[in-house]
Amino acid sequence: MEMYRFGMTLADQPPAAALVFQTLLVQGPLTRAEVGRRTGLSPGAVTKVANPLLADGWIAELGRPAEAAERASGRPAVPIAVRAERARFVGVKVTGDELIGVLADLTARPLVTGRAALRSRDVGTVVLAIARLVAGLRADAGAERDGDVHSIGVTISGDVDGQTGIVQYSPFLDWRRVPLARLVEDATGTPTVIENDVRALTVAEQWFGAGVGLSSFALVTVGAGIGCGISIGGRVVSGAHGVSGEVGHLPVGGTDRVCTCGNTGCVEALASSHAITEQAREAAGDPALTMAGAARLAHGGHREVRAVFTRAGHAMGLALATVANLIGPERIIISGEGVSSYDLYEDQIRSTFATRAFGAAADCDLLVRPLPFEEWARGGAAVAAQRLFAPPK
Amino acid sequence: MEMYRFGMTLADQPPAAALVFQTLLVQGPLTRAEVGRRTGLSPGAVTKVANPLLADGWIAELGRPAEAAERASGRPAVPIAVRAERARFVGVKVTGDELIGVLADLTARPLVTGRAALRSRDVGTVVLAIARLVAGLRADAGAERDGDVHSIGVTISGDVDGQTGIVQYSPFLDWRRVPLARLVEDATGTPTVIENDVRALTVAEQWFGAGVGLSSFALVTVGAGIGCGISIGGRVVSGAHGVSGEVGHLPVGGTDRVCTCGNTGCVEALASSHAITEQAREAAGDPALTMAGAARLAHGGHREVRAVFTRAGHAMGLALATVANLIGPERIIISGEGVSSYDLYEDQIRSTFATRAFGAAADCDLLVRPLPFEEWARGGAAVAAQRLFAPPK
Repeated sequence: MEMYRFGMTLADQPPAAALVFQTLLVQGPLTRAEVGRRTGLSPGAVTKVANPLLADGWIAELGRPAEAAERASGRPAVPIAVRAERARFVGVKVTGDELIGVLADLTARPLVTGRAALRSRDVGTVVLAIARLVAGLRADAGAERDGDVHSIGVTISGDVDGQTGIVQYSPFLDWRRVPLARLVEDATGTPTVIENDVRALTVAEQWFGAGVGLSSFALVTVGAGIGCGISIGGRVVSGAHGVSGEVGHLPVGGTDRVCTCGNTGCVEALASSHAITEQAREAAGDPALTMAGAARLAHGGHREVRAVFTRAGHAMGLALATVANLIGPERIIISGEGVSSYDLYEDQIRSTFATRAFGAAADCDLLVRPLPFEEWARGGAAVAAQRLFAPPK
Repeated sequence: MEMYRFGMTLADQPPAAALVFQTLLVQGPLTRAEVGRRTGLSPGAVTKVANPLLADGWIAELGRPAEAAERASGRPAVPIAVRAERARFVGVKVTGDELIGVLADLTARPLVTGRAALRSRDVGTVVLAIARLVAGLRADAGAERDGDVHSIGVTISGDVDGQTGIVQYSPFLDWRRVPLARLVEDATGTPTVIENDVRALTVAEQWFGAGVGLSSFALVTVGAGIGCGISIGGRVVSGAHGVSGEVGHLPVGGTDRVCTCGNTGCVEALASSHAITEQAREAAGDPALTMAGAARLAHGGHREVRAVFTRAGHAMGLALATVANLIGPERIIISGEGVSSYDLYEDQIRSTFATRAFGAAADCDLLVRPLPFEEWARGGAAVAAQRLFAPPK
């Protein structure tokens, strides 16, 4: 069990081993020769780093080679693949009022899932609730199979320092400088990493979702906040100072509404679910209107409420065009709770995007993709798995 | 001479050779062990790729090792370094009315420089002028040393496809779909690559300038246009569809002026040298006012003309904050002809940036760095040198 829990065998491998392993994780099964072509490593180097991974059960050979292929290449053409069952991870997404958890295998495939309500946003309460959720997931999974949990990945919105394990600032929980990784580790006895929730979801999309095989993509999430993860050349951009992908506060103007950040003209001040609800309340003259109620009014043809969604769509279109103009991604994936009313502003998003994307940047594919919170929790498991080769300092 | 001109020995090397060579180019001289630490390659792999580079004169050993170091490590601790004189490159920057050229060594150090006026922006005229400038630089350099030019790098503002060698669109020259690389190659008899001028300058800054050793940085240039190059993890972001770093058309609002792209509210519509001059003409009621004249009026305290620079500074501050919020670079380098009047809007740039950069993104270092056109031409030589390992398709 110890070996599973601390995984030192992997962290001690050379960087080429991480490259081979991650290539197999996302693109496998592959022959050693094909791994070499995709990583740029020589056949000898692939074999050299693959041997200890094979010996330690992280990867396995699949079947026997065709004799002809073996003769032609002079090397066995047996495909190799990651052994998904070799290690398990728990991913937990923390929202303002709920925890969503998954226990997943090495390929971040969920084996069991669970949710737990949060009665308070107090740090101690949340940490205890995470520990109980992890214990419950372990019990559920243990009934079916052997094997313990290698590590836990907790994801949370806000300024999260994955290297030090500290939540610098989370507006929704009103947390500042909370050493969350250490607290969860102490409460569960299991190594824990933390990450910004949108960046973690971007890792999952890059490895196993709509970002697989793309040279670059961005994931924009619309909901209580507006977030963005950016992946370039197979790596999620983390920002030299911990901040990246902050599209919510792009200065798109067109409003006097003051944003949570204190400025005016931010995308979030027009297009977050909170901003849409508040503006719809004013437009409809109903201070108790909910987001769902606003969507109903707009679908029913309420002109002023429809205009609220159109303005939100315009702000989102400007934000997406900004991402496309700066980064030039192959694809922008649009997700988050906000996509449930996406039909109300999709036309405006696409037309503003087409107008403001510069030249060939408009060729960027816009893909709407609903991702339930279990997928976000899966991002936590993916981040934990990613740290197999690069444990936090 | 053939070997110098086509460099097949390098293009045929494995990817690890490019990694070792580029590490030595930017960070050398280094011992093999240190190269291994910085690239993540094993000592054996470094030695294996270094040997043919040594044999072919691309790198050289410096001096003899200290005997103690040799004994301790079991491997010779001789530092190795790139042989700057091994190959020469010409870089040419094309502006609307002038060519600026350098003939540089392998480290993009200029050996000779030259300029040539353009009498017309006609493709044939420009290609002929480039060929004459290259011949002149060759003659100037040849008088001093042996060795021919390995390849030419031509840089130009606009949508430039470095892979196919085609200028898709250059607004300043009013060119569309010009196969410039092939035309220059035919006129000079020398392999030629082309690149967007700001991206080429970013390559030069990354290798030899204010970007050396940074995990990420952006270069924003202010002048007739407003451009931006982005470097993340040692690679300049090129955009999946050829567009990236288009900060000039970020929708910052605050103006009804129509931009060259047809939209309103673009950064360029407020802060390009053309936009500043036009606005200053209106403010001063002088239709013949030049940019230099506008700067003089502003320095002299002309309130309305000063306000033009302040609005430009505000738009620039929003653009820089957008780059910082999305990418989180360690540093933003600000350059271009516009920095000559930078004192007139620096305060506004910095205060807007501080207000709009989100959280820790404000820790990004803003560095003003005048770079004469010879530095831009050097970017062309750096791009040509970069293609030693990855020739255009």
